[in-house]
Amino acid sequence: MQGTGAIAEDGRIAGPHERLAAALAEPLGRVDATIRARMSSRHAPRIPQVTEHLIGAGGKRIRPMLTLAAARMLGYAGEGDVKLAATVEFIHTATLLHDDVVDESGQRRGRPTANLLWDNKSSVLVGDYLFARSFQLMIETGSLRVLDILADASATIAEGEVLQLSAARDLATTPEIYLQIVRGKTAALFSAACEVGGVIAGGTDAQVRALWVYGDALGVAFQMVDDLLDWTDGDTSGKNVGDDFRERKLTLPLIRAVAAADADERAFWVRTIEKGRQAPGDLARAQALLARHGALEAVRIEALGWAATARSALCDLPQGQLAGLLDDLAGYVVARIS
Amino acid sequence: MQGTGAIAEDGRIAGPHERLAAALAEPLGRVDATIRARMSSRHAPRIPQVTEHLIGAGGKRIRPMLTLAAARMLGYAGEGDVKLAATVEFIHTATLLHDDVVDESGQRRGRPTANLLWDNKSSVLVGDYLFARSFQLMIETGSLRVLDILADASATIAEGEVLQLSAARDLATTPEIYLQIVRGKTAALFSAACEVGGVIAGGTDAQVRALWVYGDALGVAFQMVDDLLDWTDGDTSGKNVGDDFRERKLTLPLIRAVAAADADERAFWVRTIEKGRQAPGDLARAQALLARHGALEAVRIEALGWAATARSALCDLPQGQLAGLLDDLAGYVVARIS
Repeated sequence: MQGTGAIAEDGRIAGPHERLAAALAEPLGRVDATIRARMSSRHAPRIPQVTEHLIGAGGKRIRPMLTLAAARMLGYAGEGDVKLAATVEFIHTATLLHDDVVDESGQRRGRPTANLLWDNKSSVLVGDYLFARSFQLMIETGSLRVLDILADASATIAEGEVLQLSAARDLATTPEIYLQIVRGKTAALFSAACEVGGVIAGGTDAQVRALWVYGDALGVAFQMVDDLLDWTDGDTSGKNVGDDFRERKLTLPLIRAVAAADADERAFWVRTIEKGRQAPGDLARAQALLARHGALEAVRIEALGWAATARSALCDLPQGQLAGLLDDLAGYVVARIS
Repeated sequence: MQGTGAIAEDGRIAGPHERLAAALAEPLGRVDATIRARMSSRHAPRIPQVTEHLIGAGGKRIRPMLTLAAARMLGYAGEGDVKLAATVEFIHTATLLHDDVVDESGQRRGRPTANLLWDNKSSVLVGDYLFARSFQLMIETGSLRVLDILADASATIAEGEVLQLSAARDLATTPEIYLQIVRGKTAALFSAACEVGGVIAGGTDAQVRALWVYGDALGVAFQMVDDLLDWTDGDTSGKNVGDDFRERKLTLPLIRAVAAADADERAFWVRTIEKGRQAPGDLARAQALLARHGALEAVRIEALGWAATARSALCDLPQGQLAGLLDDLAGYVVARIS
């Protein structure tokens, strides 16, 4: 099952998300129009400025595309999927804004990327405004089931973020906690985006469930690849190799290596991660320990497994162009580690 | 129409909000239990710690009391008002947490009160978690009308906060913008708290409208009194006289004085508020200008008018103990300026 091939404007073979965007160009245009209309604020002109910045920057729009694709592969032809696609993009943008909030100490350490906004306060308040707008939009669908799904996703996202904060630098972090954090960071909104598309289209329980599984597994695979590449090649968001080590983040490769550590190695992790006393050469030693315990290989296999789960969930859904593109997308997410 | 008299534990004549709390002790206890139950987090133990801190600190719980009183004065006897009262308290607490987020520059200037939490990031994320939980709770009522009201209130709150940010230090701020900011800061949640109580109780349109007007006017009066006292006595939240002047906040007394300023006075406001170059003696001169133009007296009359609006809205509602207590509450809010 392969999606349609296509050539991007610059002559490259277009990636699956570009081909999805091409297949969904018409409703995606209406999603953008909805976002612009809902962000207009009579009283606070700063708000639409921020949106223009965000929309103009042209993110990959992966979440709204998931909602549109899910609804349309089930034959949906109404307006609800466009509203829900705008809703999930609002939620995503709000979480990005809130993620931009930093503490004084964080600022002093120097932050690699610039804030989307000019200060903490604006990031919080404009994010809150986006949440409120998303809330109004989803109510317009009139579906309590959709509201339930998005409320639960919001809680999972927030809980995952708090959890990430308390798990930072904590060597006792387990793979289960890691998975919960990953669901909060990425997978909960991916799965909800797919699921609400299925619900609004009136899909069967099995179809809606399959859409949830696809989004969840796609999100987990995506984040695992990112966390793996941080140890080997730098991750997909342009960070450098070893950033997570320097920031003392307990991602799955490190969690696996810590679990397998002998006393000497454990002392090394306590010094570098818990206490944060890192010296030149420590990153190389950390990488060697991860390789030695097979932690990198184990996570690679696990990420491939999640991508396979995503792809097989598609078997329970109507086959066609969109299913083919979603299949390609799952393959694309793990292409760099395959 | 006077509420019941009562003696507080320390022998003082109890204020109206204490008498409301006594009259609503039983459902208020269930509101607390609901908040505790909904804040438990299997994965993020930091979250219930924060709630205990907030609930234990024992705010006045004015918003949940408004919801309970509104529903009960219309004869409601179900469980929905307790859920909605917990919902509005969650929303209120979340906005407090988000209000705690500060910028480096803000911290350097020295902040009078300590953060509820230990850092910006936690304030944002735990606030988001509270929003998500409030969202789940309100959905359980199954009322799209209730959801509409609370979504609109959330948007007004967020928009008002953004507006306050952009209106800061801006001498062009009008009384209309001030009112919008005040609704965002205080009145929108007061009015929504009252309104959803009426809706869940199945009140008539006229009753629901009267409840909205009561909450809105009570909130506006409350905030106006606070802003007035900041210029004369220090406000009710323990701030000192002139804090708003030093922080260059455009509240109604200052807005009125700026509107009436001659060229010489305008230069004074440009220097002290827009440019922030304040010298010893400037506060006294600012106070004298406000008095000279009758700005303080005008705002006092306006605040009393809002309290009167709140009280007369109660005439459209069933008379009894709760209506009497709400009437007293409106009187109490303006007692310090009457």
